[in-house]
Amino acid sequence: MLLKSKIGNLKNILNESNVLTDAAELYCYAEDSACISENLKIPDAVVFVESIQDVQKILRYANSNKIPVICRGAGTNMVGACTCPEGGIVLNFSKMNKILRFNPDDMTMTVQPGVVLGDIKELAESEGLYYPPDPSNYKVSTIGGSIAQSSGGACGFKYGTTKDYILSLTVVLADGTLVQLGAKTIKDAVGYHLNQLIIGSEGTLAVVVEAELKLIPKPEAQRTIIGYFDSLDSVSEGVNNIFKNRIFPSSIDFMDNNSIKTVEQFYPCGLKTDKAAMLLINIDGFESSMQYQEHTVKEALTEAGAGDIITAVTPDEIDRVWTARRASFAATAKLAPDVLSDDIIVPRSAISSMINGCKKISDKYDLKVCMVGHLGDGNLHPQIALNLDNETEFKRYFQAKSEIYNLAVSLGGTISAEHGVGIEKISYLGNIIDNTAIEYMKKIKRIFDPNNILNPGKVFKI
Amino acid sequence: MLLKSKIGNLKNILNESNVLTDAAELYCYAEDSACISENLKIPDAVVFVESIQDVQKILRYANSNKIPVICRGAGTNMVGACTCPEGGIVLNFSKMNKILRFNPDDMTMTVQPGVVLGDIKELAESEGLYYPPDPSNYKVSTIGGSIAQSSGGACGFKYGTTKDYILSLTVVLADGTLVQLGAKTIKDAVGYHLNQLIIGSEGTLAVVVEAELKLIPKPEAQRTIIGYFDSLDSVSEGVNNIFKNRIFPSSIDFMDNNSIKTVEQFYPCGLKTDKAAMLLINIDGFESSMQYQEHTVKEALTEAGAGDIITAVTPDEIDRVWTARRASFAATAKLAPDVLSDDIIVPRSAISSMINGCKKISDKYDLKVCMVGHLGDGNLHPQIALNLDNETEFKRYFQAKSEIYNLAVSLGGTISAEHGVGIEKISYLGNIIDNTAIEYMKKIKRIFDPNNILNPGKVFKI
Repeated sequence: MLLKSKIGNLKNILNESNVLTDAAELYCYAEDSACISENLKIPDAVVFVESIQDVQKILRYANSNKIPVICRGAGTNMVGACTCPEGGIVLNFSKMNKILRFNPDDMTMTVQPGVVLGDIKELAESEGLYYPPDPSNYKVSTIGGSIAQSSGGACGFKYGTTKDYILSLTVVLADGTLVQLGAKTIKDAVGYHLNQLIIGSEGTLAVVVEAELKLIPKPEAQRTIIGYFDSLDSVSEGVNNIFKNRIFPSSIDFMDNNSIKTVEQFYPCGLKTDKAAMLLINIDGFESSMQYQEHTVKEALTEAGAGDIITAVTPDEIDRVWTARRASFAATAKLAPDVLSDDIIVPRSAISSMINGCKKISDKYDLKVCMVGHLGDGNLHPQIALNLDNETEFKRYFQAKSEIYNLAVSLGGTISAEHGVGIEKISYLGNIIDNTAIEYMKKIKRIFDPNNILNPGKVFKI
Repeated sequence: MLLKSKIGNLKNILNESNVLTDAAELYCYAEDSACISENLKIPDAVVFVESIQDVQKILRYANSNKIPVICRGAGTNMVGACTCPEGGIVLNFSKMNKILRFNPDDMTMTVQPGVVLGDIKELAESEGLYYPPDPSNYKVSTIGGSIAQSSGGACGFKYGTTKDYILSLTVVLADGTLVQLGAKTIKDAVGYHLNQLIIGSEGTLAVVVEAELKLIPKPEAQRTIIGYFDSLDSVSEGVNNIFKNRIFPSSIDFMDNNSIKTVEQFYPCGLKTDKAAMLLINIDGFESSMQYQEHTVKEALTEAGAGDIITAVTPDEIDRVWTARRASFAATAKLAPDVLSDDIIVPRSAISSMINGCKKISDKYDLKVCMVGHLGDGNLHPQIALNLDNETEFKRYFQAKSEIYNLAVSLGGTISAEHGVGIEKISYLGNIIDNTAIEYMKKIKRIFDPNNILNPGKVFKI
């Protein structure tokens, strides 16, 4: 049977209106937020799943017919994790977007994969609770995508990432079998942590159809302190001074001069464009501790040579500051037809070396880089604006990227902190992680997905 | 070749003084802290490993000769995870007990598996840092055992458990291959979370030989608030009131009347023996927030009907209170020749039902139960004092245990929160976790350990 008629059969399996096969409609599923131009292909079909049973039906069919299945939430990932290099069926989860249960006493929430993170946060906060993982795009990105990519965000160092807020997962295996992993309790020491294996596996091991989330009490108060630096070299000292004074901010975010200027150019909000760098430090906790924390952070920054230190106090003020930071990707995207946001991480003591090195490499290859990052983690996002259709620029970009990765690794770091591998970073893996570890990842993949239908060609080549 | 001569060969592989084969010496390795009397066997040899190479040599030899290998730290686990039901070689890690690196700027520490948790905590605290996982026996238990059992303790709800503080692991596979898993950075999104698969696998997948730990800033201040309850029914309300007021204590520990009386009998410290229950609530954070937190917790407890509320403020006072709580296992052990500490967990809203049910079941089977627990998590440790040589008592115990597990599961909970499965809970697994999940755990086990030499007979039967 030809693939076309196989795909046509999907309309007999699901409600016909939930199956898209028209090329014009499929076109927008060829890409995600990764700006990858090579090997792009449209899927053969997109199906809107409405229930666990729908997912099971599709997987049974796809597995029997060896058709690739690619899950898609909001498509906001940065590494091509939901592109379709081998065609196949895209599972669109936008109709499985319900919060099934919210139990404030247990501080848990049961959600379908298509629920937007912002909705989880909002509902939790209505009862004084908090779902911390905070990718910059939380207003559109989904929990399914967060689980697939194990996404993090600004407050990862203090509060952890997605993996720390998943109690249990209901997943459908490649052959359509439904499995419950983990327990709906805060701790669970029964058997291997299979749910932790699924989290971050980028849809290559199983399809998540339900998740039980852990929530925590929402801190009563917060402030955002902004400090400007005249030199990149002092940024690292500023960060370390904060921790040495036993302040544990929920975020320590960073913008370099290019980022500041670019945001100011497209979304003017009064940032100081003559400064080498800016730190945005979010402190949280009890109202009674705010004055002490604020004072201590300001002293720590001043001691490292920062100036123009101000504090955002009201929710509106805080929101304005973070909107500027979150706008940096969109602003950078306006500098050139394309923007590629990378995601490297180094031990915190190597932050200044990494930032300076990244700038030098970008200058060497004549690339415009706007750097932001979560410095509590040592996580840097160099955002490079360029024209992917310009062959020489594209080549320069690849050389620069490779040097940036080598630098991160030489400083004891790695090449993906929170974006994942997708298709974008596969070719670098061999130099980054132990080859025996990759071999065992592949062995595990083969157990879960012997026909290699789940997001094939992602994370590694089988 | 007979096993005896195979074991004799170990003396050619390692320094002879590091190999014990004398029955009298082996005898104390037959048991751990689980008080399991069935199928106990002494190992065929105990080897003191001194280096990664030693571990590799032993595993290569054991794998070729299909000899079981059982890792042992301090032997404090409660589920028979380091017993030797099939004999074999015990790897004793007491000579691999070095803290290899401590980097306060990166807030990381690199340790060998035999390092005692108390030493990690102490060194971290010397630089204002904190390693939170806190099993009651942290003064003797080791990081290797903590990783194997994914151990937790009193402050798990706020600070997480061992799995949240492991950045990377160096492990030796069954065939002697050395592998590096994870990255030495705070976040890592490169490939599957293999280190999270190893954590909690109870030594059945690989042997951990080095770990990179994440530390956090040590909270500046803490207090312990004690509240007594006249009725077990009010305990749950007390816990919920605290969270509803957005206080996030580092511990909410519990002792029932039997525990209070038993501790008071053997380690008198002024506890109120006429009360139905006691909560020990540890608040931490900035000194400036202590008064507000203390006041709010006291109000929350009072509102739930608690009385005799007092606060321990100085480190000595706090230590005294927690020493009483930590003494409960040792005190219970004095009531009868044996004590079996269990480890169930339920959603927090079911705590009162679980505690009351546990008491009723123990009464029904005429068993003396002293209950303690970490109620922030919903985690209860019923400690049952009995004489394992008394056959009818032993039988009653098994019936009670089975009913307690059924109750936990019917309340949405599970049968191991932080102790693991070991050999003690294997027979209950089929009713607790999805059978397909068990099947996949076994498939993973076969990949990592095809000859089933690594802690065979633990977690599940292959």
